[in-house]
This record gives sequence, C-alpha cells and structure tokens, in this order.
Amino acid sequence: MNFKLESKDPGSKARTGTITTDHGDIKTPIFMPVGTAGSVKAVHQRELKEDIKAQIILGNTYHLYLRPGLDILEEAGGLHKFNGWDRPILTDSGGYQVYSLADTRKIKEEGVTFQSHIDGSRHMFSPEAVMDIQRTIGADIIMAFDECTPYPCEYDYAEKSMHMTHRWLKRCCEHFDKTEGKYGYSQTLFPIVQGSVYKDLRTQSAEAIASFERDGNAIGGLSVGEPAEMMYEMTDHVCNILPLDKPRYLMGVGTPANILECIALGIDMFDCVMPTRNARNGMLFTSEGIINIKNKKWDRDFSPIDPVLPGYVDNFYSKAYLRHLIMSKEILGAQIASIHNLSFYLWLVGEARTQIEAGTFSQWKNKMVSKVSQRL
Amino acid sequence: MNFKLESKDPGSKARTGTITTDHGDIKTPIFMPVGTAGSVKAVHQRELKEDIKAQIILGNTYHLYLRPGLDILEEAGGLHKFNGWDRPILTDSGGYQVYSLADTRKIKEEGVTFQSHIDGSRHMFSPEAVMDIQRTIGADIIMAFDECTPYPCEYDYAEKSMHMTHRWLKRCCEHFDKTEGKYGYSQTLFPIVQGSVYKDLRTQSAEAIASFERDGNAIGGLSVGEPAEMMYEMTDHVCNILPLDKPRYLMGVGTPANILECIALGIDMFDCVMPTRNARNGMLFTSEGIINIKNKKWDRDFSPIDPVLPGYVDNFYSKAYLRHLIMSKEILGAQIASIHNLSFYLWLVGEARTQIEAGTFSQWKNKMVSKVSQRL
Repeated sequence: MNFKLESKDPGSKARTGTITTDHGDIKTPIFMPVGTAGSVKAVHQRELKEDIKAQIILGNTYHLYLRPGLDILEEAGGLHKFNGWDRPILTDSGGYQVYSLADTRKIKEEGVTFQSHIDGSRHMFSPEAVMDIQRTIGADIIMAFDECTPYPCEYDYAEKSMHMTHRWLKRCCEHFDKTEGKYGYSQTLFPIVQGSVYKDLRTQSAEAIASFERDGNAIGGLSVGEPAEMMYEMTDHVCNILPLDKPRYLMGVGTPANILECIALGIDMFDCVMPTRNARNGMLFTSEGIINIKNKKWDRDFSPIDPVLPGYVDNFYSKAYLRHLIMSKEILGAQIASIHNLSFYLWLVGEARTQIEAGTFSQWKNKMVSKVSQRL
Repeated sequence: MNFKLESKDPGSKARTGTITTDHGDIKTPIFMPVGTAGSVKAVHQRELKEDIKAQIILGNTYHLYLRPGLDILEEAGGLHKFNGWDRPILTDSGGYQVYSLADTRKIKEEGVTFQSHIDGSRHMFSPEAVMDIQRTIGADIIMAFDECTPYPCEYDYAEKSMHMTHRWLKRCCEHFDKTEGKYGYSQTLFPIVQGSVYKDLRTQSAEAIASFERDGNAIGGLSVGEPAEMMYEMTDHVCNILPLDKPRYLMGVGTPANILECIALGIDMFDCVMPTRNARNGMLFTSEGIINIKNKKWDRDFSPIDPVLPGYVDNFYSKAYLRHLIMSKEILGAQIASIHNLSFYLWLVGEARTQIEAGTFSQWKNKMVSKVSQRL
C-alpha cells in the first residue's frame, strides 16, 4: 500500500491524496460504506460501484469469522472472491463487536474470550489470532486488535486499557510481519490510537502509534457518545501528532457535518453505519438537509429525493413513492434510501476533495455544515 | 386492448399470442410478477425490466387503496407515474385480500364492508366502487369484483357465491362501461370464472362469463389448497368453454410445473407471489430443480445460482454467497433470490413460447415438468 499526499487546503488542515492498493486506488478524503457480514445492507455490488461510486468498503471480522466462517472464506479465495467486490476492502479487528454484541466476554492480557451471539459457541480473539483471521478474510487494510473504551470512561481505566492496546499492537505487528497474505496481493496493518477523551492519554497514544511507522493510522474510541466538540478536539489533537504523509482513518464517524469538520482537521478516511442504518428507518441525508421521509409533509412530494445527485435512485424515484415504501415496510424502501444515503456520502467527500484541490474548502465547508445539518 | 393469437402447439392446447396495450405489448404465455403495494418486493424497477424482463406486473387494489390511498395515486397521475413502471399493470379487484386480510368483513349483495388491517378504519367495496378505484389506480387491465371461494367449499355456498359473482360482474361491466380512464390511456376489464371445484358450476360460470364478451377472461378460485390434479381438471374444463380468441388468465398460479401444465391447457397469463415470497425464505426455482439454499450442502458451492439464466444475479453471485446472506438474514439475500426466481419464471414462460412456436412444446413440457419439480 502506498499513500501520495496531493494537495492541502490553505485555510484548514484538510488534504487530498491517493491510496494505492493491489485492488485499485482510493481518492481521499473518502467514506467507506460498511458491509458488516460481507454485504452493504440492501445494496447490490454493482450499485455500490455504478450508483454509489464506492471506492472501498468495510467488512467486519467478528461477523465474518462467525458466519460464513474462515474455512468457507478461504475456500472461496477470500472475501473479494466470495462477495464479488473487486475493489479494496478494509476489515475492522472485531474488537468493537466482541465488546458490544458477544455474550460473557472476558478481557485479559492474552486476549478476549467470548460467546457467539448467534449460537453461544465459545471463542478467543488474541492479537495474533485476529491478524490470522484478517489475513484469511483477505482485506487490503487490516486493523490492529484494540480495546475501544466506552464513553464516559474513568481516567484510570482509559489509561490501563490504552497501555494494553499498545502492548497488543506490538504483538499484532510482530505476528503480522512474520505472516503473508494468502491470495497473492499485499495487505497492510493500521494501528489505532486510543485514550478516551483525555488529552494527555491521546498524546501518549498518538506518539506510541506513530512510532510503529505503519502505512496508515487510525483513531478509535471516538463517536461513542461524547459531545461532538470533544470528538473534534481529540481528533485535532491526535492529527497534530500523527505523521502527515500517512493516511488517517477516523473510525465510526459520523454525520455529514462530523465528516466535513474532521476533513478540516486532517482526516482522510471515514466509515459509519449511519447512512445505511438510518436509511432503513427513513432518515435521508441530502444536499439540502436531513429528511425524515416518514413525516406526512412528504406524502405528495413527487420531486426527486435529491436532485443534485446523479445516480439512478435520485433520478427515478420520488420522495412520495419512497415515503410510501418506508411506511409500508417494503424492502425496496430500504434499498432506495440506502443507495441514496451512501450516494450522498460519497458525493459529499468527492465535493470536499474538489474544494480542497481548488483551495476553497474552508468557506464551502462552513456553508455546507449548516446546510447538511438542518432538518427539512 | 387487443389480443392476437399467433401460434398453436400441435400436441396440446398451448398457444402463443400478443396482447397490445397503451403501455406496450405482452407476449404470451406470460408470468406477471406481483407488486402488491406498488413494488415487487426487494426488486428495483430497472431490475424488473433489464434483469427479469418482466412485461407486465400486478398491483393490489386492497393494499393500494389503503396505502398510499387514491388521492395520492391520482395526484401522482396513476400508479405508473407513482412507481415509475411504464409497462402494463394489472390490478386485482381487492376481493381476495378483503377476505384473507381485513378484519370483520361482511359480504352482502351490495358489496363487502371491512376494517383495514392497518388502522382498523371501516370501508366498503362494491362492484361499482372497485371499478372506480381501479380506474384511479390506473391499471391497464382491471379485474371484476368477485367472491373467491375457499377450498374446501360446500356446493350450496359455491353455487350461491358464483351467482352473486355473476350479478356483481353485471354491475362491474355497466359501471366500467359508463366511466372512462383518468390518464389518457385505455383500460380493459376482465371478468372472473368461479364455481369452486364443481364441474357443472364451472360450466355455468364459464358460459356466463364468456357471454359478457370482454377482451379477456380470468379463472379464479383455484390454487387455494385443492390438489393440483383438481386444478388442472377445472382449468382444462373452463378453457374448453372460454373463447379461443381472448387471453385467459389463471389467477394465483403457481409452481413452475403448474404453469407449464396450465400453458398446455390453454392458459396465457399467470401471477403468483410464490417466486418472491419463497425467495425471501431461501427457496430457489432453477432450470435444474428446486433448491433450499439454507441446506448445508450449498455452503461451499461457488457456482452460479442457475447458469442457464443470462441476468446479473445469476452470473455475478454464487450459491455459497447467497446461502450466507439468507442465513445471516441480510436484505441482499432477499434481493438476489427474488430477482433470480422471477428471472427464472420469465425465462420459463419465454422458453415455453419458443417451444410452442417451434411445435415442440409437449415433449419439452413433459421433460421440464419433472426437472423443475425435483428437489436438488
């Protein structure tokens, strides 16, 4: 993997670049749709490419490890071959899901034991095991195994957890570096900065993570319930420490406004379930603001969902039809809203990139943040 | 609407033809995907056209009347404009759903009173009202308001019900003929033969229905639980009475084998929720037989779902991936399986048409019936 920094915004720390992987290039800043179980929910793979224009998607180690399981993924030739997505894939480490979904989990120095939320079977995720699992899934970008602390979190717990995350990172790197990809293309490991909302811990963690000199770095433990201002403060602080010439991935963020603000702080990569999860509940993110399509005011609005977007669903379907589908719990409603929201997210980061290249990002960002945050 | 009979199979009563409507031609025999609430579940409109190659779809009067409601459909310019499907649409009369879904229904000579299954609101469907409703929905083919008797059904009830259906048909025709389409294209009314599984009632009903000399005729009250042989016997009997030069629509049928057998008896049009409903539960109809994709035997089968079919999902996705999606309750699983099953149904009636034209239908049909009925 290679990262080329291409342009910088004069009025902020926003920048553009290109990440090169064996499965193709990623133009940053970028949003990565979440495909938890090997499918971006309610979206066909060709729609991801042709309508949404996704450049990279996420897979979830915890889910894929439990189902379909590593033997099937390996026999398929990895996740790309299994689900037919031939562009880059990033897998998270599974840690976050072990903490949030699995039963009777126990965190020890060696790793985490847990029971599957599907069938109750017992498993152990260690830093080494999680590297092997992600090697087998076959992601282009692999995440270190960390502990993502909740919010709020006591200082003492955050500090101890951070140090364990750093020790786990050392084990991840050692194990990753002595193993190889299984399918003939290269894989890259991103470490994760932790430290909750404590600035001194974030300093320590960012410095520790930077010292590993991996090809990219991630910021975890944010967007877990803390106020947005606190997230921006921590992100800004960590970006000032992480190397300029490596891509920075802010995990699990966020709303369109969050993404624009964090691009301004120097973040290059984002992922979040919000555009797809909220779509299924009828919340639409558009270039004019946020729409709750269940609201009666849309029932006779036969205009396109968002006329600015060029894709199929935004040109073909009306707000009134989408409202009817969501109200009737028709699957097609979830499909249309998911494609729309992801198209909007990808359009937004693409626009941000254009504005950064033109040197006009900061003014545009301030205007857009208030526009995309308002409820229509 | 116009129907041109084009060719006849020498070994059976199968025939091909073309139905011409203001929204385009329909090549028969044809299967019509069911779009209950204005959407064929889990399928985009462009997929219906480009992948499934649907020529006509169904809408459901009961569902559309309750939601989104007639005022919204009329303001949209009819269902075609509302959902973007610009090829022919057929609406059922709503009768079947009133009997099966609605609460506290009461059938009287005047019509049926019922409560909405959505919000408990009270409504009345009469033959005249149902004509007006279907005029407003804007279907190309409109169905008469009838009573669909259950199976089993006492002779006396079946006889009385059939006579009421005939009296209702007279009212439907009178009201339909003195009203006009609302959107500038013509609409056609199909009457429905009833009579349960009683041959003498079916004779009476088919003769009565034929005497109305409408542009097409339907057979109702079958595929409601009776043995397949009984359905074939009634269908055969009724087809021998209905005029040759009008299209014949067998309502709610059926499995691939049912469809092939009934094409051989002279049926031109079919609809059924089976391909989409069963798809969502992981049952696939293929050119080699029936697959329960949840069966463990498919978990490492990386071959296409059905290599005979030319569409996207059958070339892009594997059985193993589809199995994973269905097992994980991913929406994409329902999407892929629905497109596949409908593509197969449309492929099957297309093949039947080709075989009838070539004069080879009967032998092909016998071979296919056993093939498509076997469990793989």
